Order: sequence, then structure tokens, then C-alpha cells
Amino acid sequence: MGMVTVAAVQMACGPGADGNIERMEHLVRAAAAQGADIVLTQELPATPYFCKDQDPAFFALAQPVAGHPLVARMADLARTLGIVLPVSIFERANTAYFNSLVVLDADGEVRALYRKSHIPDGPGYQEKFYFSPGDTGFQVVQTRHGRLGCAVCWDQWFPECARTMALKGAEILLYPTAIGSEPQDPSWDSQGHWTRVMQGHAGANLMPLVAANRIGRETGHSCDVTFYGSSFIAGPTGEIVAQAPRDAEAVITARFDLDAIARQRAAWGIFRDRRPDLYGSLLSLDGGP
Amino acid sequence: MGMVTVAAVQMACGPGADGNIERMEHLVRAAAAQGADIVLTQELPATPYFCKDQDPAFFALAQPVAGHPLVARMADLARTLGIVLPVSIFERANTAYFNSLVVLDADGEVRALYRKSHIPDGPGYQEKFYFSPGDTGFQVVQTRHGRLGCAVCWDQWFPECARTMALKGAEILLYPTAIGSEPQDPSWDSQGHWTRVMQGHAGANLMPLVAANRIGRETGHSCDVTFYGSSFIAGPTGEIVAQAPRDAEAVITARFDLDAIARQRAAWGIFRDRRPDLYGSLLSLDGGP
Repeated sequence: MGMVTVAAVQMACGPGADGNIERMEHLVRAAAAQGADIVLTQELPATPYFCKDQDPAFFALAQPVAGHPLVARMADLARTLGIVLPVSIFERANTAYFNSLVVLDADGEVRALYRKSHIPDGPGYQEKFYFSPGDTGFQVVQTRHGRLGCAVCWDQWFPECARTMALKGAEILLYPTAIGSEPQDPSWDSQGHWTRVMQGHAGANLMPLVAANRIGRETGHSCDVTFYGSSFIAGPTGEIVAQAPRDAEAVITARFDLDAIARQRAAWGIFRDRRPDLYGSLLSLDGGP
Repeated sequence: MGMVTVAAVQMACGPGADGNIERMEHLVRAAAAQGADIVLTQELPATPYFCKDQDPAFFALAQPVAGHPLVARMADLARTLGIVLPVSIFERANTAYFNSLVVLDADGEVRALYRKSHIPDGPGYQEKFYFSPGDTGFQVVQTRHGRLGCAVCWDQWFPECARTMALKGAEILLYPTAIGSEPQDPSWDSQGHWTRVMQGHAGANLMPLVAANRIGRETGHSCDVTFYGSSFIAGPTGEIVAQAPRDAEAVITARFDLDAIARQRAAWGIFRDRRPDLYGSLLSLDGGP
């Protein structure tokens, strides 16, 4: 695919969707102005992270992909700027609800719909109340600016997901995110843990990885969460190439030679030496057989 | 399993096995004197890293596990010190040759034999000339001082191996290693890459990880390799807890509460939320079906 510039943007989300989407568009334009070909925005950018609480009222936020106003507006933006733009939405599909990612290509067309496969559940992150585990499988999407492995937030903790996208030909891994404090334990800060696990995916699969997280303190009915930003771009040995602050709006970019990285990946021999005959236990939950 | 102290030791290997084994025993005793319950030594510690060259003469170094002099001596040492001691050997098994790890329990008994599953091949690291890919599958070994996931060197690059050991109940991951410079490209230093990928395994599986590497410059027929040491111990979020220098003999230790880590692992929810129904492509080489 040659040279490509990737960007991650991060921001706080207020109560009003219009204001959030204005800020999001402003940041995407700023990234494109810095030369970005692919711009990653955070998970569920149109609203506060409503999963802090189990509140049935929030199901009203979900909308189908077809005619989704955020998708439509971002499709215009992607086409105007000639950028690839994955957009995270709360998707309603008949009676089902998903945490979904719509991958918009640089022509503004929907190139893929991915439904988040791994759904977290814990204090501050009550996602199993809202979202069914995704039914699309992991998605690798051919776009104008490269073959992208696109997953969502909690998926980023699973080596299986990153490896599967790599095996299916991904050249870059992308993870929109909403992660921050643990309301049940103010001393618990997972930012380093979060970063290191994804650096591991980048290094193990020898490919760049982009994570975009939100910032800001959000107050729910039952708890507060302070999102820790720290969006980052890792290179193909897992090294941090660019990183945003914990608490400020940001646009970060990095430029990669995907052909050179593909040669490096082949030369290192990892994919040559895999042993699928020994990996059967990965298809179990309990390590059997 | 409660509290356990793990150690990694690193050293240079000279041409004479006796001298190497003396130094190895000295370092293992030093680690035990620092309270270590489990001591990890490097890959193939009895000899120079002969895989720099493809030389049939080196097959004469291989010996069966039964009656292996290094294993016998280390078994005495493990029993005397009451430590768990995995020992890396070049194993001959009838007509087959393996890069094997004999896991000695604190009573001096052989608790498991693991044969390295992933075999590298490239300038300076001609392992496919000597070793068949291991046929034991990944091993998790119940010892007096914990349930250990034991693999060898190149295995450390494969998230599949670490995850499988975690799924089978490992509490700590151990990797004896021989890695250093790339003779074909003196500017290529994989130490950071090597470290980050294993930090990723520790963080993704929420368990400590120990890597022991050799040091020193070794001259082969066809090339030289400078082993970069940097043996390290990572904690359950992938953080570096202890790390040895690149170029000096060293003993490093760290103490962990394995019960507390098991609670942390369950609370984080990663193993609860896996999606084996979506992982089928991991059993392929090419990402199919």
C-alpha cells in the first residue's frame, strides 16, 4: 500500500450530540489538514458514555445504520477530505442492539460494518446490559488507504482478535475506545496496562496500531468515570510513535511505509513458524481438551 | 499458590561445558540465596549457541533426557535448594532432535518435558537445521511453587502459546532464551521489540512472566552474534518489575502474590468474555476460512 499517514483524535463528550459531532468534525478536519489518510475517532463519540449505568432509557439512542445521521454526515466528510473514517455507533438492528463500527472509505461509501465481539461488564462499564456480542466476526477492510483491521475497545484486550485480523491481511489495526477510571477503586489506573497489551499486539503482528480514547469526567446516575485519553499510535515493533495527553483534546499522527513493514513482517518469520496444529485449545473457554 | 519469588539469571557461555555449568550453578545458588522459589536459566546454557552455523558436527551435542548429565546435576541442585528449576537441553530421542526444556520440581524430580514448538530460522539462528518442531504441545506444569507455563525462546513471540498456557491454568509464564544481534544487519536491535511482545503476553493474560537470556559475543564459522541479555520479569499488567543489563552476568528476582493476581485476573473479565466461536481462523496459516 506504500506510504500512509494515520491519525487518532480524542475529545470530551458533553450531553448534546450536536456539540459533540461539531467537535468531532473539527478534529477530523484538523487531522486531515496534517496529512492524515486514515482518521480514527473514539468509541460512541456522539454521546456521553451511557454504559456507566444500566438505564433502559438509553436504548433510545440506538439507530439503524441505514439513514444514521452521524454516519451520513461523516460519509460526506470522508468523501470531501478523501480520508478513511471508521465511525462508532450504537446500532439498532430490528430487535438487536450492537456496539458497531461503520468503516467509511475515502469515497464516502460504507465499506464494512463491524459489531464489537467482546463485550465488557463491570462497575462503570455495563455494556452487557446494552449490546449483544457481535455477530459479524472480525473485519479486515480493503480501503483506498490500506487494508485495515477494525475492532472496538474491549476487543483490544484479546490477542485472538488482533492475530485474526493480521492473518486475514490487515496492514494496520484500529481500536476506537472509551476507557478510564474504575469507579469501585479510585486507585486503579489501567492506562499503562491498556497501552502495553496493544503494544504487544502491534509487536506480535508486526504492524502499526492506532487507539483513540475519550477524555473528560462523566457523571452517571450510579458512578463517575474519568476517561484517561492517552490515545496512541504504535509502530510495528510495538514502539510508541505518538501519544496524546490524558486530559486534553488532541490530534496525533504518524506516517508508515506499509510495504517496508510487510517485508519486515515476512523476514521476521513469525507467520511462517506458527503451529495451528497446537492451537486447538484457543477454541475453548476452559483450556480443554 | 500464595506468595512466590521468581528469579532469572543470565551469563555468557564459553566453549567448555564444565565452566558454563559451574557458572550456572553459582548463579542459581545466588538466586536461591536471595529467596527464589523458581529460578529460570537461559536457553541451551551448557554450550555456545551453536545454531549460528549449520554444522552437522553439533548434532553430537544432543543427548537423551534419561541420564543427561546437566539434568542430573541440576536435579540435585533443585532438591538441595528446594527450588523449581527448568533446564534447557539439546535433546536426542532416537532419530529425532529437539530443543527441549526439562522442568525439575523442588524435589529434584522431572515434572515435565517440553519440546520447543516454534523453531526460528534466519541468519545467526539456524534452528530448523537442528531441531524438529516440538511434538509435546504447550505444557503447564504443577510444581511445588506454582503452576508454570514453560516454553522456550522463539515461542515467546506467539500470543497463541502464551494464551494456551494461560487457558490451561498457568500462573506464571517462563521463557529461557538466546537472542541477540542480527548478523546480516548490525543496525537491527530487537531487544525492545522482544521485551514489548512478552510484556503484552503478561498483560493480556494477567500473569507474571519471566524471560532469561544469555549475554556475550559468540563467534561462529559464518557469523558473530552478540546476545543482549536484558533478562526481565514482568508483572500481571505487563509492567517491568526487574530487568538485567545487556552485557553483564546478573540475578534478578521479584515476588508475587499469585492468589491476589488470580483474583485480579478474574475481576478484569478477559477470560469470561472470550469468543471461541470467532477464533477459527487461528487454526489456519493463511487466515482462512
